[in-house]
Amino acid sequence: MTDLAGNTSDNRTLRVALLGAGAVGSQVARILIEHADELSDRAGAHLELSGIAVRDVDAKRDVDLPRELFTTDAETLIVGSDIVIELMGGIEPARGNLLTALQSGADVVTANKALLATHGTELFEAADQVGASVYYEAAAAGAIPIIRPLRDSLAGDRVVRLMGIVNGTTNYILDRMDSEGADFSEVLADAQRLGYAEADPTADVEGYDAAQKAAILASLAFHTTVPLEAVHREGITEITPAMIDEARAAGFVIKLLAVCERIDVDGSESISVRVYPALVARTHPLASVHGANNAVFVEAEAAGSLMFYGAGAGGVQTASAVLGDVVSAARRHIAGGVGVGESTRANLPTVPIGHVITRYQITLEVADQAGVLATVAGILSDGGVSVATVVQTSSEDEPTARLIIGTHRAADQALSDTVAALAASDVVDRVVSVLRVEGE
Amino acid sequence: MTDLAGNTSDNRTLRVALLGAGAVGSQVARILIEHADELSDRAGAHLELSGIAVRDVDAKRDVDLPRELFTTDAETLIVGSDIVIELMGGIEPARGNLLTALQSGADVVTANKALLATHGTELFEAADQVGASVYYEAAAAGAIPIIRPLRDSLAGDRVVRLMGIVNGTTNYILDRMDSEGADFSEVLADAQRLGYAEADPTADVEGYDAAQKAAILASLAFHTTVPLEAVHREGITEITPAMIDEARAAGFVIKLLAVCERIDVDGSESISVRVYPALVARTHPLASVHGANNAVFVEAEAAGSLMFYGAGAGGVQTASAVLGDVVSAARRHIAGGVGVGESTRANLPTVPIGHVITRYQITLEVADQAGVLATVAGILSDGGVSVATVVQTSSEDEPTARLIIGTHRAADQALSDTVAALAASDVVDRVVSVLRVEGE
Repeated sequence: MTDLAGNTSDNRTLRVALLGAGAVGSQVARILIEHADELSDRAGAHLELSGIAVRDVDAKRDVDLPRELFTTDAETLIVGSDIVIELMGGIEPARGNLLTALQSGADVVTANKALLATHGTELFEAADQVGASVYYEAAAAGAIPIIRPLRDSLAGDRVVRLMGIVNGTTNYILDRMDSEGADFSEVLADAQRLGYAEADPTADVEGYDAAQKAAILASLAFHTTVPLEAVHREGITEITPAMIDEARAAGFVIKLLAVCERIDVDGSESISVRVYPALVARTHPLASVHGANNAVFVEAEAAGSLMFYGAGAGGVQTASAVLGDVVSAARRHIAGGVGVGESTRANLPTVPIGHVITRYQITLEVADQAGVLATVAGILSDGGVSVATVVQTSSEDEPTARLIIGTHRAADQALSDTVAALAASDVVDRVVSVLRVEGE
Repeated sequence: MTDLAGNTSDNRTLRVALLGAGAVGSQVARILIEHADELSDRAGAHLELSGIAVRDVDAKRDVDLPRELFTTDAETLIVGSDIVIELMGGIEPARGNLLTALQSGADVVTANKALLATHGTELFEAADQVGASVYYEAAAAGAIPIIRPLRDSLAGDRVVRLMGIVNGTTNYILDRMDSEGADFSEVLADAQRLGYAEADPTADVEGYDAAQKAAILASLAFHTTVPLEAVHREGITEITPAMIDEARAAGFVIKLLAVCERIDVDGSESISVRVYPALVARTHPLASVHGANNAVFVEAEAAGSLMFYGAGAGGVQTASAVLGDVVSAARRHIAGGVGVGESTRANLPTVPIGHVITRYQITLEVADQAGVLATVAGILSDGGVSVATVVQTSSEDEPTARLIIGTHRAADQALSDTVAALAASDVVDRVVSVLRVEGE
């Protein structure tokens, strides 16, 4: 396979199989066909789209593609290919197909975050055994190049913290709630009409999609296999216009963040991986990520702060990332040698959310009477939670007041225990909201 | 060199030679020593800093390093090494040393933008001949990972335009002029005191440094060798507080941009690479890049708009990029195969600035009398330049008025010819400033 002179071997043809022809797959096929010469030039070998495996050859596609490329026989297509692109989504048959591809010596390209977050290790090990590679630039933040920067560019540095807006649907919803003062359900319905959200929005709005991406990003950032179960996850369905208003008044915006952080627990190095709606200062670069865009903010020991910004989803945008991987895979085939496996040997433990150190912003509905603040302050103090700011708002016609308490940094366990104690207290009518502050 | 099982070969040692121990080099050496185990784990081989070649072993360094590592005999050090890191800067002896390293089969890592912009092709060809690689993530925008995204992640896409703030010194100066209303020379003197600008600031303020980076970025973005001579270059020394005020009034900020653009000239595809102070809308993501930070904004056909942001310079920040390259080079040594050469086969011609299509913002000092605007409008019209906006300001005590003219898009040659005609006109006392608008 190797040209020992190191030259590109123009007479070599690499067979590229595509599994799936949905929004991303059909764009990948189109670009592979339309820009065949240009991509082949860059790859150093002729890239031939050898076939497209689908469930239904006659299904309607976004893009008009040559009918003879389609097949329902994925196995036969895979076994004769040098590079297999998997864009079917879901666990099976994607997992089985990719294992077959790797076992037959093909490099594989996938955008399947669910598969990587649950069966990544199995795929990486299968690749290592035959010296092939798994490429997945499209799996974490759509078209934004983040995998190579983490895997290669920052391989000589130590990532301290990564904060990502990695789900476009929820950023779109929160951004519109912030700019229009609209309700969650109202904006969600609109997002569904416009195609920004799926008919069943659970994966997005409950943070499952972001959690899968967080697991992938944390694995790369910390050279550690992070299982999906280790990711703490909260969604955005409870976010109200009132919470957004209060956040604004305090100089914050609410963003669904994937936070991957190196933390010290009792003197030993650990990591925390979590997804939740958090308060971000309006001056933070992540606060200006609007609409369905994504961004990943990385803090590294030597490099300092870096940000990567772009479209997080979309068929043609994601196709860009997939095709970059195809060219990389082709170059590796031509260059020879074995694929560089994942670097997971730091093997840091993931700690539960209780160990995370953050600030809380707690909004309480309390009886509007003397002594309440003293009682609340006492509960906070008993819980070991130090108060940074308190804003009390009350109106003449209501018997209750609102207390908005900003805490100092403390362990999440202490903070949540203290919120539970507040909720149980006689003077607190209701815990209206609790949000963590990130990016300070 | 290859472990055929594809496993990392822990018992293998790779000898890493460092040439130069300045601000970046001393940080690279420190981190290579302090984090030896962690970096070796990620590389898949033991990385041994085998020596540091310097001119003067006894010179004072930023970091305390073991004296026995230092040598003045670069050649001997290089020949016994697997990876050679060049951080000396300048053309010679850097060029000769890197050619020796490549000829002896070492992979090389360099942050030397001047060398790459002038002798890059020679180095890449020398690497190709032996199947080695040249890594240079630190050469274009300090710690910001931009080389791998352009080279690999976007290899399946077509970059339409790249706009970079790639020189921290000039961004620092322009940002302070913008926020404080200060003079160029005043801020420059301050920047020199604070270490943001060199005693001889020519390379930065005249745009030479940015032009070298533009040549490197354009070569990667367009798969074309772009010689430094093909880069149009203008500096920021003529920028006045008045120009910044006028820009602000029109909703712009002035930034020194490196612009690399795919353009159509008479139906054939070409590229333009240029560095100049330009007007950028305050709502553009590049407008919010403050201080000495860098950012690269990329527009690609499929991926859409992407931005990469971070520290553009600094010893330890740049060391991060260098060490990422060292780990990549080590992984390639372990994986076997030949290095993947540069992709330069698109071989697009670079066109002179006259072909570039932009908008101009022209400020004129004119006689404050009837008919002047008609004359000016006539000259613009004769030049084929269509006017988008005109703002006239005059004061009672002065005989002259100011005309601030925003043009529609036109070829740069037509625009500059028209400005020359305006300057020669009787009614124009002075062409106060001419700036191009970018990022629209």
